[in-house]
Amino acid sequence: MSPRKIGVTELALRDAHQSLLATRMATEDMVDACDDLDKAGYWSVECWGGATYDACIRFLNEDPWVRLRTFRELMPNSRLQMLLRGQNLLGYRHYEDMVVEKFVEKSAENGMDVFRVFDAVNDPRNMAKAMQAVAKTGKHAQGTICYTISPVHTVEGYVKLAGQLLDMGAQSIALKDMAALLKPQPAYDIIRGIKETYGEDTQINVHCHSTTGVTLVTLQKAIEAGADVVDTAISSMSLGPGHNPTESFVEMLDGTDFTTDLDMSRLIKIRDHFAKIRPKYEDFESSVLVDTDIFASQIPGGMLSNMESQLRAQGAGDKIKEVMAEVPLVKADAGHPPLVTPTSQIVGTQAVFNVLFGRYKKLTAEFADLVLGYYGHTLGEVNPEVAKIAEEQTKKEPITCRPADLLKPEWDELVRKTKELEGNDGTDEDVLTYAQFPAVATDFFKHRAEGPHSVAKSFAELAAEKEAKAKGATAAGIGTVTYNVSLGGRTHTVKVERA
Amino acid sequence: MSPRKIGVTELALRDAHQSLLATRMATEDMVDACDDLDKAGYWSVECWGGATYDACIRFLNEDPWVRLRTFRELMPNSRLQMLLRGQNLLGYRHYEDMVVEKFVEKSAENGMDVFRVFDAVNDPRNMAKAMQAVAKTGKHAQGTICYTISPVHTVEGYVKLAGQLLDMGAQSIALKDMAALLKPQPAYDIIRGIKETYGEDTQINVHCHSTTGVTLVTLQKAIEAGADVVDTAISSMSLGPGHNPTESFVEMLDGTDFTTDLDMSRLIKIRDHFAKIRPKYEDFESSVLVDTDIFASQIPGGMLSNMESQLRAQGAGDKIKEVMAEVPLVKADAGHPPLVTPTSQIVGTQAVFNVLFGRYKKLTAEFADLVLGYYGHTLGEVNPEVAKIAEEQTKKEPITCRPADLLKPEWDELVRKTKELEGNDGTDEDVLTYAQFPAVATDFFKHRAEGPHSVAKSFAELAAEKEAKAKGATAAGIGTVTYNVSLGGRTHTVKVERA
Repeated sequence: MSPRKIGVTELALRDAHQSLLATRMATEDMVDACDDLDKAGYWSVECWGGATYDACIRFLNEDPWVRLRTFRELMPNSRLQMLLRGQNLLGYRHYEDMVVEKFVEKSAENGMDVFRVFDAVNDPRNMAKAMQAVAKTGKHAQGTICYTISPVHTVEGYVKLAGQLLDMGAQSIALKDMAALLKPQPAYDIIRGIKETYGEDTQINVHCHSTTGVTLVTLQKAIEAGADVVDTAISSMSLGPGHNPTESFVEMLDGTDFTTDLDMSRLIKIRDHFAKIRPKYEDFESSVLVDTDIFASQIPGGMLSNMESQLRAQGAGDKIKEVMAEVPLVKADAGHPPLVTPTSQIVGTQAVFNVLFGRYKKLTAEFADLVLGYYGHTLGEVNPEVAKIAEEQTKKEPITCRPADLLKPEWDELVRKTKELEGNDGTDEDVLTYAQFPAVATDFFKHRAEGPHSVAKSFAELAAEKEAKAKGATAAGIGTVTYNVSLGGRTHTVKVERA
Repeated sequence: MSPRKIGVTELALRDAHQSLLATRMATEDMVDACDDLDKAGYWSVECWGGATYDACIRFLNEDPWVRLRTFRELMPNSRLQMLLRGQNLLGYRHYEDMVVEKFVEKSAENGMDVFRVFDAVNDPRNMAKAMQAVAKTGKHAQGTICYTISPVHTVEGYVKLAGQLLDMGAQSIALKDMAALLKPQPAYDIIRGIKETYGEDTQINVHCHSTTGVTLVTLQKAIEAGADVVDTAISSMSLGPGHNPTESFVEMLDGTDFTTDLDMSRLIKIRDHFAKIRPKYEDFESSVLVDTDIFASQIPGGMLSNMESQLRAQGAGDKIKEVMAEVPLVKADAGHPPLVTPTSQIVGTQAVFNVLFGRYKKLTAEFADLVLGYYGHTLGEVNPEVAKIAEEQTKKEPITCRPADLLKPEWDELVRKTKELEGNDGTDEDVLTYAQFPAVATDFFKHRAEGPHSVAKSFAELAAEKEAKAKGATAAGIGTVTYNVSLGGRTHTVKVERA
């Protein structure tokens, strides 16, 4: 029997630099890798999402749509893939359905092939419209399970959610492990459950971060359970809070019942490209290599550092342990949402408020919305007492309908507002940029004509720094150093060492 | 059925800092972790070997025997484990049997429990004496398979070697993967083969480096095949050219048929200790994170950088590709030895010589010895033409006996010579230090009384560097610096620049 072929999604252009380099990589540092990415044999190339879109206009003075069209042109043979936050699109609020439709339509038109649609609280109703819109364009609609661990999350529950996504027209299911919490055995059980319930030909893609150091084994167990496609990042853009290395995944299958179709000579060229580029972004590097604390604390690294800076800003930096102990309680009261953007920020900030001002004495508007149902339906029950406090504080009614059903048509108004902005180019793409990031877009349109502005160091700067450091390290008095010392007009040779 | 318990050997005190920090860690930076190491539930704590012994006397002015006794005292409940290069002991030549006996006896007496005995060319005759000596002390003798990939190395061959080691009295078998070449499937096949051939109760320990990024999956498959103990390193001292993270290994078994008895709260304390200590050694850090090239090139990272510096010293830095192409040929001509100390250096240097001076125009003394049998029997046949050249160049006869059989008794002479050295303390331990590292030991004995000399940065230096960096590299005082210097009650203005 010939080995079963496993597809691979390369993450270098999106989640890898989002996780490792604060999403700062400029398009100019990606284009030279595109030919090899296009021909290496990947199932898809992930290259677009909320943070990359945001970083383009916020930090890089790049039009994200131009970036997408560049990828389309440079990778004509590849499936381009994006991460889409359901009814949120790439922004931080729910959009009315027509905006969702427009966004998907324009993304497809500009070259997107695979839409990985997810929702922070795993509410299928928040994914439905986006998936319908994808189906309408004829592109690939992937429904997503956000994996988390809680008293209410079970293998059976995840299998059931997969069924709901398939019923909604998902052509594949993504099992998304944004916090590296997915251990090998539950991965195996969930994937086996989906395959056995909905058929062995149900396509399953697995996305794991590598933060906890366990998830390459998770990918192994996932494919033993029948997973079809796994997400990896080229080795020079891998590990830490990022993902498992592509080449290692390929090599580990050697001699097993599985194989990939990846061309190692292309992978090496991709690796070498990013190995060269990465130092330019050293100022944005994450320092985490392995961290298994999240299994106990349930707090992703990014969320922890957010809470720490909030506390410090309040002069309460010493309260972090109390806040960490508060998080599981707040999460439970909110119905055990997975902690991923934006729920991680919402739960984290409320935990900080509880410690600073007393438990639920002061709710953030977002947390009140969460417990009142405005982010959708959480799997666990919201603590009714907390919901009552939210109702009282905000004078808002709790809802059970799909949150976007409450929204009025807004497309025409967005078009009108965008057209008033200096530098807008009159396209629907600009309307969508404005819709999702109104303040940043307003500024971006004004300056767009100036062209991309990289925040990376140049190779010349890196070389100069390296030289300065080499000189500085020796001058810093490590061990014994010999100096020429001029004193009173005479030069002495002096040997100096640290006392 | 309750899960099967997997033992864990912690590598933080030996191979982890050898692989990541050039073996420079001082005893003073280890002692505070010992209580937790002792009580965390490890199967053994690896803490001694050739490089740590060498680094103690060469760089740290520490007596390696004092270090061993310190560990023994601080970890009374643990199996202390060492890596022993068979008839080479911790040095780079073969020793006469009585020296081997003395070394093992003294190591056991000073507190060693588990002796992992290996030989670079996997010649059981080079391991026999050391293993007998261990048995005589009543300690644990572990026979080792050095794993490599070659046309003559097969699963069956490794299984056969395990049998020879068991026949020689090995109480367990170590499968040692020093170059991170051991993929999951061959690991499974070799371990299954050993268990099925010699009994399921044959203890198998698995040691993998993490350089290629695949070997956590290798450990998973190894335990599925029946492996009993695996080697890991606490996460803050893991990955890169080192080893897989201990905590990740523990977590990945959650919910499976396997478990460890490790106490996570102790692991976290050990992790935090080394996370704090590691920056003190940043000058010795390896920069490798993942490297799968070795699967194709067969050249371990350390060997490659050695060859590069040899070429540069000859003004032939541009010839590295030719040398890399020459390595497999030289390795094959030498009978396919695994590339590990010292064979990696011997094969590498000969490949450099072949490119610089013409193929086998000039042999190194060590390479001639290798092909003439003076390092023992290699699994593949030595190229007879190359052996003939070696014979002609060196006027030495090829041998087929155990190399150490040619050695004359040397213990009394070593004792005599050691007693002549300034600063020797008259112990057998000093004789053994001199026997293994004659030049370095001579110098070490002279300065031993000065006490340990750490090469690490102090926390104060680290803090000062951080501050200086924050202030800006421009103010770092590179070039000429002016100081006010007080000397003998007078203050001078002194201009200083590097000589």
